[in-house]
Amino acid sequence: MTPQFRHVALIGKYHHAASGTVAPGSRDVLERIAAFLLSQGCQVSLESETAHNSGISGYPALRPEEIGEACDVGLVVGGDGTMLSIGRKLARFGTPLIGINQGRLGFVTDIPLENFETTLTPMLHGAFEEDRRPLIQGQVLRSGKCVFDALAMNDVVVNRGTTSGMVELRVEVDGHFVANQRADGLIVASPTGSTAYALSSGGPMLHPSIPGWVLVPIAPHTLSNRPIVLSDASEVAIELVSGRDASANFDMQSLAKLRRGDRILVRRSDYCVRFLHPRGWNYFDTLRRKLRWNEGGS
Amino acid sequence: MTPQFRHVALIGKYHHAASGTVAPGSRDVLERIAAFLLSQGCQVSLESETAHNSGISGYPALRPEEIGEACDVGLVVGGDGTMLSIGRKLARFGTPLIGINQGRLGFVTDIPLENFETTLTPMLHGAFEEDRRPLIQGQVLRSGKCVFDALAMNDVVVNRGTTSGMVELRVEVDGHFVANQRADGLIVASPTGSTAYALSSGGPMLHPSIPGWVLVPIAPHTLSNRPIVLSDASEVAIELVSGRDASANFDMQSLAKLRRGDRILVRRSDYCVRFLHPRGWNYFDTLRRKLRWNEGGS
Amino acid sequence: MTPQFRHVALIGKYHHAASGTVAPGSRDVLERIAAFLLSQGCQVSLESETAHNSGISGYPALRPEEIGEACDVGLVVGGDGTMLSIGRKLARFGTPLIGINQGRLGFVTDIPLENFETTLTPMLHGAFEEDRRPLIQGQVLRSGKCVFDALAMNDVVVNRGTTSGMVELRVEVDGHFVANQRADGLIVASPTGSTAYALSSGGPMLHPSIPGWVLVPIAPHTLSNRPIVLSDASEVAIELVSGRDASANFDMQSLAKLRRGDRILVRRSDYCVRFLHPRGWNYFDTLRRKLRWNEGGS
Amino acid sequence: MTPQFRHVALIGKYHHAASGTVAPGSRDVLERIAAFLLSQGCQVSLESETAHNSGISGYPALRPEEIGEACDVGLVVGGDGTMLSIGRKLARFGTPLIGINQGRLGFVTDIPLENFETTLTPMLHGAFEEDRRPLIQGQVLRSGKCVFDALAMNDVVVNRGTTSGMVELRVEVDGHFVANQRADGLIVASPTGSTAYALSSGGPMLHPSIPGWVLVPIAPHTLSNRPIVLSDASEVAIELVSGRDASANFDMQSLAKLRRGDRILVRRSDYCVRFLHPRGWNYFDTLRRKLRWNEGGS
Repeated sequence: MTPQFRHVALIGKYHHAASGTVAPGSRDVLERIAAFLLSQGCQVSLESETAHNSGISGYPALRPEEIGEACDVGLVVGGDGTMLSIGRKLARFGTPLIGINQGRLGFVTDIPLENFETTLTPMLHGAFEEDRRPLIQGQVLRSGKCVFDALAMNDVVVNRGTTSGMVELRVEVDGHFVANQRADGLIVASPTGSTAYALSSGGPMLHPSIPGWVLVPIAPHTLSNRPIVLSDASEVAIELVSGRDASANFDMQSLAKLRRGDRILVRRSDYCVRFLHPRGWNYFDTLRRKLRWNEGGS
Repeated sequence: MTPQFRHVALIGKYHHAASGTVAPGSRDVLERIAAFLLSQGCQVSLESETAHNSGISGYPALRPEEIGEACDVGLVVGGDGTMLSIGRKLARFGTPLIGINQGRLGFVTDIPLENFETTLTPMLHGAFEEDRRPLIQGQVLRSGKCVFDALAMNDVVVNRGTTSGMVELRVEVDGHFVANQRADGLIVASPTGSTAYALSSGGPMLHPSIPGWVLVPIAPHTLSNRPIVLSDASEVAIELVSGRDASANFDMQSLAKLRRGDRILVRRSDYCVRFLHPRGWNYFDTLRRKLRWNEGGS
Repeated sequence: MTPQFRHVALIGKYHHAASGTVAPGSRDVLERIAAFLLSQGCQVSLESETAHNSGISGYPALRPEEIGEACDVGLVVGGDGTMLSIGRKLARFGTPLIGINQGRLGFVTDIPLENFETTLTPMLHGAFEEDRRPLIQGQVLRSGKCVFDALAMNDVVVNRGTTSGMVELRVEVDGHFVANQRADGLIVASPTGSTAYALSSGGPMLHPSIPGWVLVPIAPHTLSNRPIVLSDASEVAIELVSGRDASANFDMQSLAKLRRGDRILVRRSDYCVRFLHPRGWNYFDTLRRKLRWNEGGS
Repeated sequence: MTPQFRHVALIGKYHHAASGTVAPGSRDVLERIAAFLLSQGCQVSLESETAHNSGISGYPALRPEEIGEACDVGLVVGGDGTMLSIGRKLARFGTPLIGINQGRLGFVTDIPLENFETTLTPMLHGAFEEDRRPLIQGQVLRSGKCVFDALAMNDVVVNRGTTSGMVELRVEVDGHFVANQRADGLIVASPTGSTAYALSSGGPMLHPSIPGWVLVPIAPHTLSNRPIVLSDASEVAIELVSGRDASANFDMQSLAKLRRGDRILVRRSDYCVRFLHPRGWNYFDTLRRKLRWNEGGS
């Protein structure tokens, strides 16, 4: 039977320079998965950096935009960070993504490596749950001109510099003044990002069906500056009123240095990321497992 | 000029038995407002309990359902608690509500008594901001039969008994198991209720435009049981697995005693409450004032 | 070799009426432990209720005060709740306590049942870590007269009634006014209690070496009413300013109904509880295990 | 009458380079206070940087160590930040400090400028409350050698770099392993610091009489990594397991860059700072004012 997804791109673990971790055995794993895909009648390409890092040859090596144009699905073998990275790049092509995790399952890379064949087979033939996640479009305006423009799947984070004190941020929503906040920073998180940094900073979880962002102040000076959930149809503007060495981070992966007076504009992107999950997948099962609810712990 | 709202119902402060507070001078206040409404060409009725408590005669005394059928707008003179109470009763009639506050302004009773004439005049002639808030429909099922049914504007709260320990609650969303929670209780709050009890219990604020509820566990045994925002298109079911003397509270104003095995079903009501605010009203202004942001406090 | 503790009292699981749980096999367990103690040269008595509930005969059945007078150590076979209950009763006698847990280890019942012989043998001969925990002395004053007096190991909790709204509490420390708090209630917790209800309500953990209490407001109306750690040499007075059906709970095990104007006085008791742990025991190991730090969870 | 404090050092506002704020009129203010002190029979010196910045001549200009050796009291005219800065420098001399605040009162600079004469007069003659605050001694060890050594009055903060992700920190107390924490950072705060950055990050307040520190994780990955209060007789060791560009900050005023493997040791200093307050001063009054309890806010 011909699979629904004829051309599959394999994307390997994103190598985070900070931790310097390299997944051992990932070459073997990628080759096993590629062979399985071929056996299912799929055409297989490798994301170019993955091909380079793993040293696997014998498959076409495609850059993300080539994947977006040529492939029917991206199969990520790695963690949530890898997913974020490739998800942003493929968003404008609408390429759906499937995530296999070698280690601890992630929030969005939820297929365990062992027995991946059993899980993938029906998915390749169209039996899956689709889960669309909106992307955040962020811009930095300086004297009215856009000096930085990026997408984020998890969050846009405005941060103080390490060696300096609090920043003061003026927050507006759809042109309405909300507050001047003195804090370490401010997170604007999507539902996807609400279980990441925003959760550690005291924010709530947002179900993926919520068309909203959550604004989470980081260590706010005023104790009543609490997280607030806003419609994702709103435009949030954050102006750096004071603070040295502040920055705006997108998914904690790309960064803009900020100057006083810079305005960070956050709105919903026209694109969204499409995650595919095995049939029967449910968001709450992932939450329960990741947050270790009902394991009898204290 | 004929006002847009021809027949206005005046609703006075809800007398909370617990605090036993009676607003002094409320009779005078109500009479002044009534006289002003007459001078604007409106017909004026009094909510029956308000008429009884204040001793004002000379105006028709109408029960809430009569107000719903006969009046064009309800003018509440009191606090947010009074608004909640009458709002639930008028919801199915779609009667809009305006709130005047004698003391500290509330989240929804946001017109100060002084100079109320200046604020009300344009509103009576159609210059206002309308703000629709969804209502929560709550039911208690026992052995599959509905034994309690109520609306809530703020929240449905499942609570342990005072003299007993934690309750154990099984939470499901649209039939999917979420978690068994051991806690003092669980709050399901609307955007309106998100700035009330839910906020005190660690929940986020939800902008009124968010079509969602927030589930806030009260003193949860498991520290990762954090607030979660759900679509208000979902049905939340909460089953009392264990715990004596538990109860379900609707807006902390009406209460159902619970037995083990009872299921509390929470969904969006078909009705919503319509609040009218003065032109230029903005939700964030209210938040900033109520939460004392930007007053220079610590 | 003669054990250091010649006369051991065995205390079984406290049967909580609410949950109605009865530990199956606890008779067998108690008999095995008693036989082991005899084999070590100890004299064995049974706490009278334990003797009654388990149906074990052949050992003297002693009431708590008789245990306090006659026994060298109490061996609790149960959970932290059982420990709290017997600990309060034995406090004035200075009887040390050892805790064996049949199920999940507790914060203070930290010896697993399996291989208890290996752990207990050196302890009976004097190789242990002693860990003294101060007790809280609580009193309820009505019109200046003491109407309730109790000890607590974990906490004194002032609570609103289930069916009523917030209480208003006036808090004083050593006669100095601290604040009027409107909240669901207020917890005064010892270091022992800081990992129980107080932690669920947002309080910090206090190391047992801290000579202090933590005051944790429950769902406070004012968001800046945050937990505060006070010296246990201070006297805390909590006056019920308003609120119906409020109560003061001691370890959530004994309760005083409160009237408006009642004052709850909290001070350090002259007594403390002595827990004995196996050599090498460390508080942080218990915390790490109970709170599941470093298990790779999210 | 001869004042108890014969030689008074005047210390002006600390000019924070980041904000670049210079208190306007501070020269006038300092001269007025100096004249008042002379009129009370005191000898007056100016802290050397204060003399330089204000341009005031006619008084001896003393460096902090000269103040420590020659003066009986330091009179700080500024905010809490100025107090922290001079307090650390004078700690080993035991010079007591009085704080006058030109703007909003601080936690430790609690005398308003207006009518300062009325408040200071009795204090200069010995009528005051003394309030001793322990200092934190922090060291950074690299390969076993001390590469940085500093005092802190508020806190020692280990921080991730702005442009990098979480740090991983191994925490030990008195040589006992506590946990490996992945977080934005970790705060060790004194009671004085517990109302500053630690409070914004979710920590409790510690009364100054508590002989303890509070460890507050900043945005911890594991939600059960909650604040913990430790005896200040303990030594806390924090090892940077991973993370780029991390740093250790002392009172957010002096900073050590960290390398992987560095160990930050935190213990109680042999010195403490002596604050003098007007008679009748009480810590809770300061808390209530600063945190705006009982102002009727939400």
